[in-house]
Order: sequence, then structure tokens, then C-alpha cells
Amino acid sequence: MSGTAGKILVESILRLLRRNADKHLARMLRRVHAADIAAAFVQLSPTDAIRLFRIIPDIELQGQTLSEADPESQRNILGALRDDELLEIVKSLSADDAADIIALLPDERSAALLENWKGDDANEVDTLLAYDEDTAGGIMSPHVFALSGPTTCREAIETLQASHEDIEMAFYLYVVNEHGQLIGICNLRQLVVSDPGRSLESIMISEVVSVRTGTDQGEVARLVAKYNFLALPVVDESNKLVGLVTVDDVIDVIQAKHTEDLLSMAGAGGIDLDEQLTPFDSARRRMPWLAASFIAGIGSMFVINSFESVLSQIAVLAAFIPITLGMGGNVGTQAATIVTRGLALGRVQTSQFMRVLGREVLVGLIAGATYGLLLGLFAAAVFRGGNAGEGWSAWQLAGTVSISVACSMTIAATLGGAVPLFFAKIGIDPAVATNPIVTTTTDLVGVTIYFVVGRAFFHL
Amino acid sequence: MSGTAGKILVESILRLLRRNADKHLARMLRRVHAADIAAAFVQLSPTDAIRLFRIIPDIELQGQTLSEADPESQRNILGALRDDELLEIVKSLSADDAADIIALLPDERSAALLENWKGDDANEVDTLLAYDEDTAGGIMSPHVFALSGPTTCREAIETLQASHEDIEMAFYLYVVNEHGQLIGICNLRQLVVSDPGRSLESIMISEVVSVRTGTDQGEVARLVAKYNFLALPVVDESNKLVGLVTVDDVIDVIQAKHTEDLLSMAGAGGIDLDEQLTPFDSARRRMPWLAASFIAGIGSMFVINSFESVLSQIAVLAAFIPITLGMGGNVGTQAATIVTRGLALGRVQTSQFMRVLGREVLVGLIAGATYGLLLGLFAAAVFRGGNAGEGWSAWQLAGTVSISVACSMTIAATLGGAVPLFFAKIGIDPAVATNPIVTTTTDLVGVTIYFVVGRAFFHL
Repeated sequence: MSGTAGKILVESILRLLRRNADKHLARMLRRVHAADIAAAFVQLSPTDAIRLFRIIPDIELQGQTLSEADPESQRNILGALRDDELLEIVKSLSADDAADIIALLPDERSAALLENWKGDDANEVDTLLAYDEDTAGGIMSPHVFALSGPTTCREAIETLQASHEDIEMAFYLYVVNEHGQLIGICNLRQLVVSDPGRSLESIMISEVVSVRTGTDQGEVARLVAKYNFLALPVVDESNKLVGLVTVDDVIDVIQAKHTEDLLSMAGAGGIDLDEQLTPFDSARRRMPWLAASFIAGIGSMFVINSFESVLSQIAVLAAFIPITLGMGGNVGTQAATIVTRGLALGRVQTSQFMRVLGREVLVGLIAGATYGLLLGLFAAAVFRGGNAGEGWSAWQLAGTVSISVACSMTIAATLGGAVPLFFAKIGIDPAVATNPIVTTTTDLVGVTIYFVVGRAFFHL
Repeated sequence: MSGTAGKILVESILRLLRRNADKHLARMLRRVHAADIAAAFVQLSPTDAIRLFRIIPDIELQGQTLSEADPESQRNILGALRDDELLEIVKSLSADDAADIIALLPDERSAALLENWKGDDANEVDTLLAYDEDTAGGIMSPHVFALSGPTTCREAIETLQASHEDIEMAFYLYVVNEHGQLIGICNLRQLVVSDPGRSLESIMISEVVSVRTGTDQGEVARLVAKYNFLALPVVDESNKLVGLVTVDDVIDVIQAKHTEDLLSMAGAGGIDLDEQLTPFDSARRRMPWLAASFIAGIGSMFVINSFESVLSQIAVLAAFIPITLGMGGNVGTQAATIVTRGLALGRVQTSQFMRVLGREVLVGLIAGATYGLLLGLFAAAVFRGGNAGEGWSAWQLAGTVSISVACSMTIAATLGGAVPLFFAKIGIDPAVATNPIVTTTTDLVGVTIYFVVGRAFFHL
């Protein structure tokens, strides 16, 4: 099945739904992956999405589909389900998926649901809900296949065969001591290829990379990506094995972080993708993120207005405002993005603060001097006669634009390098906070420099 | 081992290297993961990186470290290695990793190396090198654990035990027919827990998701992320099983795409992270990506200059140029990013072109009207007396700025929605091409609207 096949599948679902061919659709859904059904939701109205969800012929498949759906569809469907229906659905899910769904509910509703849901599974889910959703605890599954050190390979395989439990991706087998503390790891292949009489202790690898329940998800993702792990065991503060983060969860974390980074850069951090909201709600969510730009614009307005006397004598200066600000903003965003990404990938270290910053200053200076010179020559060529009426020569204009572009680009690159390094140093994610600060500051500094330089060159 | 431990390790490596404690360092490196050694390169000068590489006490570990290193360090080390050293190193690697390293060499050097390297492995690497590096063929490993349908579980386990081959992540076992065509898949757990006498055919899942050698890597990543696969089999045009893409390779693809997307958005697409280049080389690489901004700025300059007579009569208009352009640019980037990311995640479809575009137009209109009104009121308050000397009232200014901000934001959001949809429709990656086009066009349209509206309001 390829990506095209996935699209065709979604189209078939939509067609059958439009035709009200519910029975036919139910038969078809039985053979479809939950992720494909979930992919159809975003193309449906909220009402139709609920209709489709109710047609799913199996409670377990309903649960998986709900887990795979985008956040908006999840909220929509959860709102439509009765409490007793929802309880049956979450019961069919693995504890970590159930916890993720319950975390979406309003507090009273989730409390009532957990109240009605008794037994071990409910306790497990309750425990998972206590972890911060940005931590390893928030994405781990509490079901880990763990055995004691003296267990033989034969016994381990028999236990695996006998286990009817929902063991998530049993590709590694974890070895624990009598206190439940993690002491080693075997992979399933080692188990299969080893002499059946050997103990797990004797074949396990005892240097295990593990994370704490409170470890940040970004750090978990970094470790999995760096060391090519399929799963990472999660331990509590006493090194007791309490859960497992699998690579599929890590990919979800990486994708979500990617979306967040891109939206932050676009001055839209914190808002989620919003294709299912009404345009009015979308606008309401997006507008606050335009405020930094608005404030920078108002600031520039005051700066420019305070130089009205300069502008009224040398009208042509207004024409070069956008390019001065644009070049500064662009080079600043470039530097900020390169440093931020370098930090995220571990290729730039905050301990190298001055070295990294020094590079960005020099890059800004070189790029600024080059583009400044280019713009100066260009201005001199276009306005080569100067303006006899206003009494200035082309070279005054060329000097102003070249010096101010060079300065504002250098300062912008410096800010673009310094701001993410500073945020990383004090423990704030640079991807989220850097861009609005760099662009806003760059604009205000750039426009001020421009007029100060202009006033000097035109002797005003 | 946590992230902090990784940092401490890198610091120890650097310290021992500075002290020239080569023997001590070699002993230590023996116990270190290749990814950790590779992480140290970026903090070293090219010469020291080569020194460190030569201290690595084992040819296999050298190979893995080279594989894990960043592209700049790879090029640096490859340049320093003699041909015979390099041959031994690539021979120690798995075929897909060897092919990735050889692909970095200049054509003559790679041809000479393959010439000297004879045997099956060399042929395999040669085959891999023929695939486009952006395709499934470009990241797959040709070593797949595949057996025929009638094989029993017992035989399969015995084969697995006997196999000394380098089988990459044998967590799935693929089942092929007599022509080597993929007919099914078992996971290792099924194999272990099933009756040893059963045939693979009887326990396999026969609906296998596979990709072609030519399938785009982005599509491979999307499938793995969507269906939570650990590996994806790769087949040729006759459905013959030829390789395997594993989830760790997919994470690398996702990370690389993420870096590319972020740099593209920052107007720095196509340049790689450059922390190891000299500032001069960095500037030379980054500068071309500022050209779009430069051209837009020159365009704006001509537009503004052509309205010089308007500006010379109503000087205050210059002060509102940055905010008009800034708000348009920001809302356009927001829309472009949200639509681009929605397309990448499959949450927005090109088939919904008009619906998606309609939303963005409405969002732009609502946000534009709101911020336009706000700015108009603000302008009216700040310049409440108007300007008797120039003969205009505050309401003329308020009208100009509010209408032009509303219009330019609406147009910017429309462009931000339309451009990525258009690129996706014609098969160009919207993440790469969208932003420069949207911001450049928005600037030019915005500044034109501003002066046309201004001329109307001030009756010029």
C-alpha cells in the first residue's frame, strides 16, 4: 500500500459516507488501518466525522482510530460520545493511549470516567495521568516485558509465549533485580539465538541507557535519534523500571516539535494547525501572534515620525526604508535559525557562546558590507544627478543607504546569534522565543540607525 | 546515560586530546558509542578532528563514527584518509552505510575505490549507489532476513541462529516466493510464540505495506510515521524484495527535512548548517538567499519613489510604511506555514484547493479588518489634530492606514494559502519555494496599495 493507495482509501470512505452506504462502509472499515480512518476525519464536517466514527464496526478499532485522530477531531468526537460509550472505548485501549485520550477531557468528565472505571487498568491510567505531558512519563507505556536476572532463555521464551498481556513492541527484554530495578537488556534476537539454558544475566547488556519519568520529551527524542534505539526504558528516582517509550511515540514527538518550531518561526507559535476551525476562530487564535509585528510597526512609526524634518527635506529617504528593514530582518532570521537548529541538533554548544557569536557577527559584517556596497552603488546609479532642488548629491544618498544597511545587517546577525544562545543558556527553548524578539528589535534598531546615519550624511 | 552524560563524555575526549594522552584516550574510546565520538568533532578544529579519528582504536568503530559524523566532518576526514585506509574502513561498514560514505567522494576517487574493492559487498554497494539519494533505494539496507513460505518456525529460528550475516534489525521476518517476491511478513515475536512446526505462510500477515526503490524518502517517512512501522520492505518494479528501510534511517530523514524546512523558511534553504565553515565561506553561502529580500526592497524603493509627490505633500505617510509591510508579511508567513505544514502532515489536501484558500482569505480579511481598525484608531488618536499646514485631517490618515493594512493583510493571507497549494499541486515541495515568493510579492503589493489608497484619501 502506497501513499496513493491511502488517498484512494480516504476517497472511498468519503464516497460511501455520502451515499449513506453504512453497511458497506462498516464492512470495508473492518479491513482498514485506524490511521487511514483517522486521516478521513480532517476532510469531513464535524457531524460527518461523528457519523463515520459511529459506523466503525468494532470498539477496539474505534479506540485506535480515536487515538490516531488529530486533536480537533478528537475533541469533536469526544464531545459527541456518551460517558458509557467512551468508557468502553478507553477500556479497549492500551494504558498510555487511554491516558492520552482522558487527558483531553474536561476535569469533571475525566474524574467521573475514572470513578466508573475500576480495577488495575484504571489505576495504571491514573498513575500515567499524573506525569507532565511533556515528559517521558507522559508518553511511556507502563507495560514492559521485564524478567529477573537468573531467568533462563528457555523460561523467558515460555513466559513470552504464555503472556496474553498487551506487551508493547516486545523487541527488547528488560532484566530487573529483586527490587524491580533495571539491571540489563537483551534483544529478542539474542534470546532466540542463545543456548536455551543460559541465564538472562549472562547474555544481557548491562550498560543500559534509560531516562527518568520526568525527563523532557525532547531529550528522549534526541537520545533515540542519536543512538538509533527502538525503545528506551523509563525508570523512577530509585532506578525502578516503570515504563517504556517506543520509537513510534518518539516520531510523534519529533513531528509535533517540528510543527511547533515552524509555527513559532512564522510568528504563530503555540497555535496548533487549525484547518477544522471556522475562519473566525482561526483568526482569533492567530491574531495575538501578530502583536509583536504590530508593536514593532508602531515603534517604527514613532521613530520615523520623529525624523519628519529629515524626511520633509530629503523625501527620497522614505524609499529606502523597506529595504533597510528587510535586509536586516532577513539576515537576522537566517542567523537565528541556523544557531537555533545547531543547538537543537547538538552541533552548537552554549559553552562556545563567544565563538559562535563571533562567527555570526563576522558573517553579518561580511554580508552587510557586501549588500550595503551593492545598494549604495545602485542608489548612486539610479539617483545619479542627486536632487538640485533639495540640494543633495547621489553620494550622500549612497553613503546613507550603504552604511545603514551594513550596520543594521551586522546588528541583526549579532542579535540572531545572541538571542538563541542566551535562551539556551538560561534553559528556555530558543525555537519558541527567538524570532519575535529578533525581528522586532532589528526593525527598531534598523530604522533608528537609518535616520541617524542619514542625518549625518545630509548634514541636517 | 543521559544527555548530560553525553556532554561530559565529549568534554573528557576534548581534555584528553588537548593533553595528548593518546593511549588513555584510545582505551576510553573503545567503550564509547560512535555517535558520542562523532559529536565531539564539531567542537574541534579540522586538524584535531582528524587526530581524534586516527586515535579511534578499532577500524569498525572508525567506520561507525565516520557514518555518524556531520557532513562537514565527514568531508574533512575523508580528505585526510589515504585510499587504502578508506577502503578498509568502508569494508567494515554495512553496505548502505558504505554507500553513503562513498557517495560523498569525488567521482574519480569513488570509482578507484570500488575498482580496488572486489567481491559481493562491492557489487552490493555499487547497486545501492545507483539509486537516487532522495529515494527509498538511497537509504535502504540490502540485507533483509527473508525466507520462503513453506519454511517452518523451527527452521526459521535455526536459520536465524546460524546466520552470521549482518542482518539489520531483524525484528520482522519477510516471506518471499520462489521468485523472491514479497508475499508476507512475520514479526520475531510471532515466530517465537508460535508452534515450531507451523509454516511461515500460515502465520504471516500477507497484506504488507512496501515501497518501491524509487519512492521518495519523504513518502517513506510519512508511511513509517503514520503506521508506526519499525521497518519498511523495499521492492523493485517486479515486487522482488531488494532491501529494507529501518526506522532509525527514517528518523534521520525526518530530522534532515526539518532542518531544511526551517532554513527554507528563514530564507536560507539549500544551505546546510555551517558552523564549521569560516565566516567568509558562511557569508558566501548565505548571501544568495538574501537576494529575494534585496529585490523586493529595490522594487519597493521604486514604488515609493514613484509616489514621491504624495510623500512630499503628506510626510507622515512614510511613518506607516513599515507597519503596513510588516503586518502583511507576518500574516502571509503564518498562512503559508500553516498550509504548508498541513499539506506535509496530510491534514490539508490539494483536492480541497478552493475550500482551503477560501478559509485563508476569510482569516486574512478578519485579521486584516481587526488590525486595520486598531491601527486606524491609533493613528487618529496620535495625530488627532491632523496637520493644518499640510491641510489634512486625522481621519484621512486613519482611513488610509486602516484600509491599506486590511487590504494588504487579506492579499498576503490569500497568497500565503494559494502559493503552497499551487506548488503542492504541481509537485514542487511547498516548504522550499513558498516563503520567498510570498514575502516578496506581499511587500510589493502592500506598498503599492498603501500609496494608491493614500492618494485617494488625501485627494491627490
